[in-house]
Amino acid sequence: MKIIGHNIYVGNDLFNNAAFLIDLLPTPNILLVSDHNVANLHLNKISALLAQYSLNAIQIQAGEESKTWSSVETILSALAHYQHDRDSTLISLGGGVVGDLCGLAASIYMRGINWLQIPTTLLAQVDAAVGGKTGCNHLGIKNLIGTFYQPMAVLADITLLRTLSNREYRSGLAEVIKYGVVCDAEFFSWLENNQVDIINRDEQALQFIVARCCAIKQEIVNLDERDQKQRMILNFGHSFGHALEAATDFKYYLHGEAVAIGMLLASQLAVKIGLLDQVILNRLACLVSNLNLQIEWNKGLCSPSMLLDYMMYDKKKRAGKLNLILPCALGKALIISEPDVPCIEDVLQNYG
Amino acid sequence: MKIIGHNIYVGNDLFNNAAFLIDLLPTPNILLVSDHNVANLHLNKISALLAQYSLNAIQIQAGEESKTWSSVETILSALAHYQHDRDSTLISLGGGVVGDLCGLAASIYMRGINWLQIPTTLLAQVDAAVGGKTGCNHLGIKNLIGTFYQPMAVLADITLLRTLSNREYRSGLAEVIKYGVVCDAEFFSWLENNQVDIINRDEQALQFIVARCCAIKQEIVNLDERDQKQRMILNFGHSFGHALEAATDFKYYLHGEAVAIGMLLASQLAVKIGLLDQVILNRLACLVSNLNLQIEWNKGLCSPSMLLDYMMYDKKKRAGKLNLILPCALGKALIISEPDVPCIEDVLQNYG
Repeated sequence: MKIIGHNIYVGNDLFNNAAFLIDLLPTPNILLVSDHNVANLHLNKISALLAQYSLNAIQIQAGEESKTWSSVETILSALAHYQHDRDSTLISLGGGVVGDLCGLAASIYMRGINWLQIPTTLLAQVDAAVGGKTGCNHLGIKNLIGTFYQPMAVLADITLLRTLSNREYRSGLAEVIKYGVVCDAEFFSWLENNQVDIINRDEQALQFIVARCCAIKQEIVNLDERDQKQRMILNFGHSFGHALEAATDFKYYLHGEAVAIGMLLASQLAVKIGLLDQVILNRLACLVSNLNLQIEWNKGLCSPSMLLDYMMYDKKKRAGKLNLILPCALGKALIISEPDVPCIEDVLQNYG
Repeated sequence: MKIIGHNIYVGNDLFNNAAFLIDLLPTPNILLVSDHNVANLHLNKISALLAQYSLNAIQIQAGEESKTWSSVETILSALAHYQHDRDSTLISLGGGVVGDLCGLAASIYMRGINWLQIPTTLLAQVDAAVGGKTGCNHLGIKNLIGTFYQPMAVLADITLLRTLSNREYRSGLAEVIKYGVVCDAEFFSWLENNQVDIINRDEQALQFIVARCCAIKQEIVNLDERDQKQRMILNFGHSFGHALEAATDFKYYLHGEAVAIGMLLASQLAVKIGLLDQVILNRLACLVSNLNLQIEWNKGLCSPSMLLDYMMYDKKKRAGKLNLILPCALGKALIISEPDVPCIEDVLQNYG
């Protein structure tokens, strides 16, 4: 087992280790929240581990459409129904959606209760579960309601990744690549050199990947928990990616799939304005493609002008500036505020 | 003007001082929330002060019945509608309900925006506005949803207290007395010796009272923001008081009126179990009565056994222990966990 920071545990037996788990829990009063898919796969096992405890379990629907205030209310109602108090612990067992919803519910139930994160997807293990961002979508705006709230611990057990579909697994790899591009050139090279192990979900490779990504993220969150400065770098690929998700109604692309395409668009823009060497862009496209992620989006589903409209609309809704994260070398990126719109347009029109 | 801690301002001209107010605001983007009563009295003035700024204003219904998630959603929707972003400031202008709702909304909108508290009641100035407890009632449980979130500043302008009804003013005095009983014997004596000035709302007396109460509360909050230990002392009178409010459907007693009766019930219990001297109880009853607060509740509205039931029900709903705050001397109180129920019953039956 590797311990990152003071409370992120990465290993391949966390989920079998009752003593370890029980040691983490301050009281025996637990509400465990998962989605139906995850519950079918893993709930019996965790219930057995905690058999001596008073554990209530509920499930929410899987998927981004569940990331609503109504789901948060379901969790709050269950906490109240089972008479949980400020000493109880909420365990989130699932991907990013379950984690974000539970974090929000834990942060506002009776002004904050204990929260234990058990991420079950690669994307959640390397990204969503670390850093304490919680939230639900509201009024059509992503994470309009949310808090910064740190879980008391994050348990990333890489054996849980065995049950992921290939598509979900690949989606997580996009965020893995992201860390290499904007934070760690050496890690990027390691990914290039270990593609077969990565595709085969080799346990040692996965442990290394999850631990490295969590360490990078934790380091950045320690510098800038509130996402005002350094943490923004981790949005690389996300402005384009989120517009692509929104423009296709969150139905066509998984988050990581959209981020992969977004990273390539942002890098293309970086090359165009003379910030990034073409060689790096080529290496990125090659790695993304070799890990079986698409490098182009389906223009039949969403035209370039539609994608631009969504980026601008998102910016307007948030009444903020458009900040794009553009790589300037391998392992290094800049926050570019209010980039030239015709330049973005040109990249969107001619990319591919 | 007196400055308590680093961000509580107590004075009688804060509300006329545009430069001071503008200096506090990080950006010109402001949503001001008040209730209809307060808006009628004070909104024009504050709008004029901030005329150069982009100020949107909304009102919610006055009263405890408005302390719902639906009111929080109204505030969140207004923030989104006016395209406020993470740099905007939410100003709460009102009593405890408006403050608690705004604090909650500010703490969860886009993971937290700036919040400026302008409490307009004595109760809010001496208690609710200090310490960062936010919340709304949900599923019939008081403050089931809430956060700990500190406002960037609290402006307590005692000239705002001129427009309070006598009843509302008296209700605030109950919390003032509370600080004397459980934290500050000297302050309690000062209150005994300045009753005429207090009743007449003498400006100097009010400035002294508000500043002293804020200082006491801030000191306690600094020791125990999360209400695990020392801060619980400030719940003196509140277990009985809250049960009385709930048993009469929050319609008959103002919060402070119920707390005044609750303080006397708790002190009676303290005397009964030999913790407190009868002389102190008599002095408390005398001060409460001289400041025109009732010292007995209307048993026609709520029988002693009903009051006990509500206390037990509240305890059960929160799945917690019954913790009563009982004074053991003037300026000093203890947290008594799971006190003897027949003893409480006896006090309720025979008190008066």
